Amino acid sequence: MRPSPATPGRSTRYGYGRSLDLPFAGALERTRSALQAEGFGVLFELDLRAKLQEKLGVDLRPYVILGACNPPIAHRALLEERDLGLLLPCNVIVYEEEDGRSTVKAIDALQMLSVTGNRNLEPGALEVNERLRKVIDAL
Amino acid sequence: MRPSPATPGRSTRYGYGRSLDLPFAGALERTRSALQAEGFGVLFELDLRAKLQEKLGVDLRPYVILGACNPPIAHRALLEERDLGLLLPCNVIVYEEEDGRSTVKAIDALQMLSVTGNRNLEPGALEVNERLRKVIDAL
Repeated sequence: MRPSPATPGRSTRYGYGRSLDLPFAGALERTRSALQAEGFGVLFELDLRAKLQEKLGVDLRPYVILGACNPPIAHRALLEERDLGLLLPCNVIVYEEEDGRSTVKAIDALQMLSVTGNRNLEPGALEVNERLRKVIDAL
Repeated sequence: MRPSPATPGRSTRYGYGRSLDLPFAGALERTRSALQAEGFGVLFELDLRAKLQEKLGVDLRPYVILGACNPPIAHRALLEERDLGLLLPCNVIVYEEEDGRSTVKAIDALQMLSVTGNRNLEPGALEVNERLRKVIDAL
């Protein structure tokens, strides 16, 4: 039985996340599982550190972007606004902190979709946010 | 020699794009090449139609999302704002229209990054926008 999280997630200006007392690889694995459990497919997984090392020779701390998508919500949103692919999927980031802990954060979909000016997208964005918050709080 | 585009791109609320007198596959191929020519790597390519067909059994028109990234600009932006992975990379969408033409649009990075409230990101966003507009206008 997994204990309740000691520290719940908190909102930032355009995200919702937590710091976990876990090394990066474990945090990433747990994030993948929690997304799946909440009905999100992971459409891509970008290893930012590897990519920037390859392209620029710089050394970032471990940092991965997961592209999370709930297919029914995404489909309804696309029917409402065809250009919405410009803002899909919903990113979840996992990165290593200076002290070896890990941060996991999810995009605030309502905030991100506000740039469309289409208020019909708000119910779907709120549902995505609710699910993403469950993902973060379950880590 | 390729003629100048008959119709230049135009801005929408959160994107910049054009309609092309080309079938989908040709528009997608031309978009990939134009991104590369302007210094963008394509970090992912999502076939939205295939994904939604697989997950929901629905039939969308052809629709692909390309995740475009200019490594030096992305790196500077991440050093300025570590959580920026929530909004990376910059999406470019290619989809088939009802009449067989194709639409190609790029995200307006300045508009998208406005949700961060961090004005230090503006110069990079403007540079990305300038390059993305060149990509669209070169199609």
